[in-house]
Amino acid sequence: MLNRIEAGVTAPLGFEAGCAAAGIKYKDRTDMAIVYSKRPCVAAGAFTTNVVKAAPVLWDKHIVEDCENLQAVIINAGIANACTGEEGYGYCKQTADAAAKVLNIPADAVGVASTGVIGMQLPIDRIVNGVSLLAAAKGESYDDGHKAARAIMTTDTKAKEVAVEFNIGGTKCTMGGMCKGAGMIHPNMCTMLCFITTDAAIDKALLTKALKNDVVDTFNMISVDGDTSTNDTVLLMANAMAGNPVICEENEDYKTFCEALHYCMLTLSKMIAGDGEGCTCLFECTVVNADTKQNARTLAKSVITSSLTKAAIFGHDANWGRILCALGYSGVDFDPYKVDIYFKSAAGELQIVKDGVSTGYSEDLATEILSQEHVTAVCDMHNGNEQATAFGCDLTYEYVKINGDYRS
Amino acid sequence: MLNRIEAGVTAPLGFEAGCAAAGIKYKDRTDMAIVYSKRPCVAAGAFTTNVVKAAPVLWDKHIVEDCENLQAVIINAGIANACTGEEGYGYCKQTADAAAKVLNIPADAVGVASTGVIGMQLPIDRIVNGVSLLAAAKGESYDDGHKAARAIMTTDTKAKEVAVEFNIGGTKCTMGGMCKGAGMIHPNMCTMLCFITTDAAIDKALLTKALKNDVVDTFNMISVDGDTSTNDTVLLMANAMAGNPVICEENEDYKTFCEALHYCMLTLSKMIAGDGEGCTCLFECTVVNADTKQNARTLAKSVITSSLTKAAIFGHDANWGRILCALGYSGVDFDPYKVDIYFKSAAGELQIVKDGVSTGYSEDLATEILSQEHVTAVCDMHNGNEQATAFGCDLTYEYVKINGDYRS
Repeated sequence: MLNRIEAGVTAPLGFEAGCAAAGIKYKDRTDMAIVYSKRPCVAAGAFTTNVVKAAPVLWDKHIVEDCENLQAVIINAGIANACTGEEGYGYCKQTADAAAKVLNIPADAVGVASTGVIGMQLPIDRIVNGVSLLAAAKGESYDDGHKAARAIMTTDTKAKEVAVEFNIGGTKCTMGGMCKGAGMIHPNMCTMLCFITTDAAIDKALLTKALKNDVVDTFNMISVDGDTSTNDTVLLMANAMAGNPVICEENEDYKTFCEALHYCMLTLSKMIAGDGEGCTCLFECTVVNADTKQNARTLAKSVITSSLTKAAIFGHDANWGRILCALGYSGVDFDPYKVDIYFKSAAGELQIVKDGVSTGYSEDLATEILSQEHVTAVCDMHNGNEQATAFGCDLTYEYVKINGDYRS
Repeated sequence: MLNRIEAGVTAPLGFEAGCAAAGIKYKDRTDMAIVYSKRPCVAAGAFTTNVVKAAPVLWDKHIVEDCENLQAVIINAGIANACTGEEGYGYCKQTADAAAKVLNIPADAVGVASTGVIGMQLPIDRIVNGVSLLAAAKGESYDDGHKAARAIMTTDTKAKEVAVEFNIGGTKCTMGGMCKGAGMIHPNMCTMLCFITTDAAIDKALLTKALKNDVVDTFNMISVDGDTSTNDTVLLMANAMAGNPVICEENEDYKTFCEALHYCMLTLSKMIAGDGEGCTCLFECTVVNADTKQNARTLAKSVITSSLTKAAIFGHDANWGRILCALGYSGVDFDPYKVDIYFKSAAGELQIVKDGVSTGYSEDLATEILSQEHVTAVCDMHNGNEQATAFGCDLTYEYVKINGDYRS
């Protein structure tokens, strides 16, 4: 049903993207990006649950919840515009005003997003100048989308993009996405910054519902370091240019749309976890046969957020006691002597624990399995039928290095 | 009222301690310890809330809750006897039986405690042999207590001891304590292993109440890495040999006893946080003027457990945005634009944030303040009158190194 294509946010009809080097904080690189739709979009957003919300989060919540359409998003990397008070919020408005002017659209159709250092004010003159550069540079090629995905990176090492084609009522629709995020990643709503575009026609209430339902098992299931950012934002824009019959009820078409959305969100989530600051591998935990879905999620997240477990994964050490320990302090009740644990990766699969105690497995084989770029721990609770997967990464010297000295 | 003395668990009358090199896992060092009272003690315990409880935790809970007295505790370092099933619990009983025999006391007056790797079985022959060595070696000098405190260390770099004298009804009483713990420290009840002795006479119910009330603001307020161990244990033993009138109601004497207990528990807690695995400093967060005591505790703990904040402290980087961010995702609601933040240490005090935004402080002075061995962040919520302090440490390369390769 879904056909993955090599593209990003510019894949759907009518979407353009671009980047600029505005000199906000970084030198010798692009640091601003635009996502623009030729037609106004219905939009949905998911935002950080942190009490401390960055100014652009407040701005975008307002745009998505109170205004009619979204047509452009202006993004900057380097400064987060968080903890910046009234002044910071004013800069969001000035950015939107500047974009509205050069793009000839209403200011309340312009979203803004920022990522970087907390507590510094934006150099608004450079931002406004950057907006003009963006308006002039944007285009609809894959290359334009890819450049935008690179411009929003901070400590990311890879641009993160995805695109799929799907079919709604006989019409080919397309969805594309890009995101960034490597540190301060422990979304309780969504992650640092994610932008998903689609040319499918869909009712706003259903778009909102689809996004809300999907973040629970995608962006809310990743963690790099347990810190929920002030800036987490997912913006989903649908411009209806594919020409499909508008999805306005929860029918098969809606289901197909949700599948495409889930594919994009899950793919981007895993890209973030696998590119966690300083990490050497994507560390996944799947909890199976839990009593409830929520408990499965809680258990899986507890494992991938355990510093000790993450350090052991870095050391390729099958220190399963730390996994059982992390399940145990998750807040979920269970019988430890029913739990089985397996490790798996491209190098094979191995049962490490049966009924809560060691199977006497081969340490050499376990180390081999844990030495891959994508490692999964499967925890079988033998306590029901629900399952969930959480995505994290290992904890390395490099993480400490990056974060011990981020601002200098 | 309280007089701190240079001593440990052997300070109170009638308490002996000792150590032995039993060769359980470590080479060329002592790895077992005993704490023994000449007279049977009333005892209280606080144990891990982890669903996965180590065998010695289950044993000690039984002894403290269901049995009359506690007279000796046998401790080993190297293997935690956690996730070891019926076999592991059987070894607790065998250890207690062996101690009962050589000490000529009932087996149900013997506590056991273990710390180290999860999932390995204890080499019971060596443990039983070690118990005999301990019984022969124990003594009541400060040196004996100090040797015991060293024998229970794992990745600790310093022995952790405390002792105070206090006065109950005109009689001098003494309390001493030792503990260990550096990794897997995020007690939700108490910490890895802590043993407190006193010659004061006190009713068991009040002893239990005093311990229960005090862990909330001491051991439950420290975190090294957010991982709540399977083995966390605090054992408090009172042998009544000081000869004071028995404390059997919540009067001034009880209050004095609680003060002595709090002093010992707080001192030992801070020693653990300040000796966190790989850490270079004790990082304290005091939240003042919060709306409720529990919210103050939650906010303070959120700050000292934030990986990003801990890495910034390691880098002597006044990255206050991470502190405000950690307050924000703690789950406590507050107005970020009312918050003030200060850093203080032996090098001075500096206001960094006023009303949620930067004060434009001197980065050089902030770095100087953060370069000390004991650093405090004070967060003024301007939202009430309650306060709490949490104790943690910085996150360093060394932490990753220790935990990436702990078992080899």
